[in-house]
Amino acid sequence: MSEERVLLAHGSGGRLSHELIRRVFLPRFAGEALARLDDSALLTFGEVRLAFTTDSYVVKPLFFPGGSIGRLAVCGTVNDLATAGARPLYLSAAFVIEEGFPFAELERVVAAMQEAAAEAGVAVATGDTKVVERGGADGLFVNTAGVGIVPPGVDISGHNARVGDKVILTGTLGDHGIAVVSAREGLSFATDIVSDVAPLNRLVAAMLAAGEVHVLRDPTRGGLATTLNEIARQSGVAITLDERSLPVRPGVRAACEMLGFDPLYVANEGKMVACVPAVAADTVVARLRGERYGENAAVIGEVIDGRPGRVYMQTAIGGTRIVDMLAGELLPRIC
Amino acid sequence: MSEERVLLAHGSGGRLSHELIRRVFLPRFAGEALARLDDSALLTFGEVRLAFTTDSYVVKPLFFPGGSIGRLAVCGTVNDLATAGARPLYLSAAFVIEEGFPFAELERVVAAMQEAAAEAGVAVATGDTKVVERGGADGLFVNTAGVGIVPPGVDISGHNARVGDKVILTGTLGDHGIAVVSAREGLSFATDIVSDVAPLNRLVAAMLAAGEVHVLRDPTRGGLATTLNEIARQSGVAITLDERSLPVRPGVRAACEMLGFDPLYVANEGKMVACVPAVAADTVVARLRGERYGENAAVIGEVIDGRPGRVYMQTAIGGTRIVDMLAGELLPRIC
Repeated sequence: MSEERVLLAHGSGGRLSHELIRRVFLPRFAGEALARLDDSALLTFGEVRLAFTTDSYVVKPLFFPGGSIGRLAVCGTVNDLATAGARPLYLSAAFVIEEGFPFAELERVVAAMQEAAAEAGVAVATGDTKVVERGGADGLFVNTAGVGIVPPGVDISGHNARVGDKVILTGTLGDHGIAVVSAREGLSFATDIVSDVAPLNRLVAAMLAAGEVHVLRDPTRGGLATTLNEIARQSGVAITLDERSLPVRPGVRAACEMLGFDPLYVANEGKMVACVPAVAADTVVARLRGERYGENAAVIGEVIDGRPGRVYMQTAIGGTRIVDMLAGELLPRIC
Repeated sequence: MSEERVLLAHGSGGRLSHELIRRVFLPRFAGEALARLDDSALLTFGEVRLAFTTDSYVVKPLFFPGGSIGRLAVCGTVNDLATAGARPLYLSAAFVIEEGFPFAELERVVAAMQEAAAEAGVAVATGDTKVVERGGADGLFVNTAGVGIVPPGVDISGHNARVGDKVILTGTLGDHGIAVVSAREGLSFATDIVSDVAPLNRLVAAMLAAGEVHVLRDPTRGGLATTLNEIARQSGVAITLDERSLPVRPGVRAACEMLGFDPLYVANEGKMVACVPAVAADTVVARLRGERYGENAAVIGEVIDGRPGRVYMQTAIGGTRIVDMLAGELLPRIC
């Protein structure tokens, strides 16, 4: 163990990330909020319930079709707050900058943050800047933490999936991951693919107004497959997916085939997966389809009484396969 | 301007850091909380007032006499919350790790965070881990954000210094900066100097119980000189210091002389500077001296009716000089 070193896959969001959390972080930071392993912690101050979350962003390149590290840093944290059903209100913004980084690029990043914050209706309330010498960091890393208010009565958690719930996905799979990797690698066959990075708090508010929601999570690193495995474990249920119902843009599907990727494991930054009672599913989907960022919403599966933690897929050709958590690292520095 | 690049001095905490904030961040993130430029933002949720802050930590080396990046990441954010008179409650912890970083070192860092969090009485409630490829970051960067509750009636801000206030420093100057630089550079003459990095929330609570406090700030990057310049600007007052009253350990003084540093500009991580009404000063200092981390507390100057934003020092030999904000970069990656 003293010889062990951190691998890229420890940052994948998949199996090794979970191992790292369970082995290194949970034993030391043993609090109720963290132990729930939701994307946001729930903090209670008398009558006031707040969601609190953080993410560091190390995406490469800093600018990609449809977004930038700035837009990502705001939307990613807004969306993590939204997964608790919270109304995001305040962000912190902390920059680690490599010496020699162009001022003009920093200004573009900050402008993108401002624009995304305005769209989400959040304020950047506090910040920090560190500069490290040339070679000490790769251009720019951004961290945001966020605070949002959880309305009374809202109780949304990865622990709340119930047998019979329908699984809803708010749109197409894999756009962000393929957009970033195509920009990074200069892939000519994927030039029309644009990241889906977007703040989803208004979409989530519309969803909550339409019907009861048990679970919300944004399928980022590790993709939909990893996110559903997390939900199935946390709730002690099984989930089954219908492959034919999964929305994937043709360009993303083609890029995935050429690259050998499965869209189930590719990161999204503008999508939510939800578990809702079956009776509410159609109403919720109809409402989502009328909202910005929800046009391609669909029921993609359901929560079943199977082996706890297992995710299955009914394939297009009529078979069933197990969908596991991401193993290894598919796309480093995707967010 | 399109040619301009970020310099190490933009991360110094001194004049160029302030320029960066005023030029790039404030115009884009124009909210009331940020515009106050206190170390913590004050957020109001009905009757509940919270302090919210963030810092990234890029200290090099990761382990130094008296502390580590882990202890620093907890204490620095706890202390920023304490400068608002808040009771720190929850932290986030986000790690950017270079591929190949030893697991055993990560575990030491996390253990140090746990220990400091326990001492401060705060919980790590949420977190994130990213891994970047070899050469993409220098070992490990840690970001913490923090949330604390501001008790009713407490109103502490860099804007609140009043003419006649006494300036109190809770202990000796420069220990952290000299400990880190001596570890980094292998300075044999400074081997007995230990960082002062410590959580000061209990010390601050004792101070608030002893008397009225107008301003609290922790003199980290840029040192006491920069912090006092910030307070003088924010409050539109002048401040005068008595050089003979400044507590500096002999080893730190000797190291500063050999390195050509002025202890007024060297970073501290376990000290607070406070402005308190003159009538309360002796009581507050006496109380501080009975507390852990406050043994060397002293009145070091006062707030005067002079040119707004100016800081003066009455020197040991009877002269007066202007003490400016840090210009350039004294010690990169000190925190």
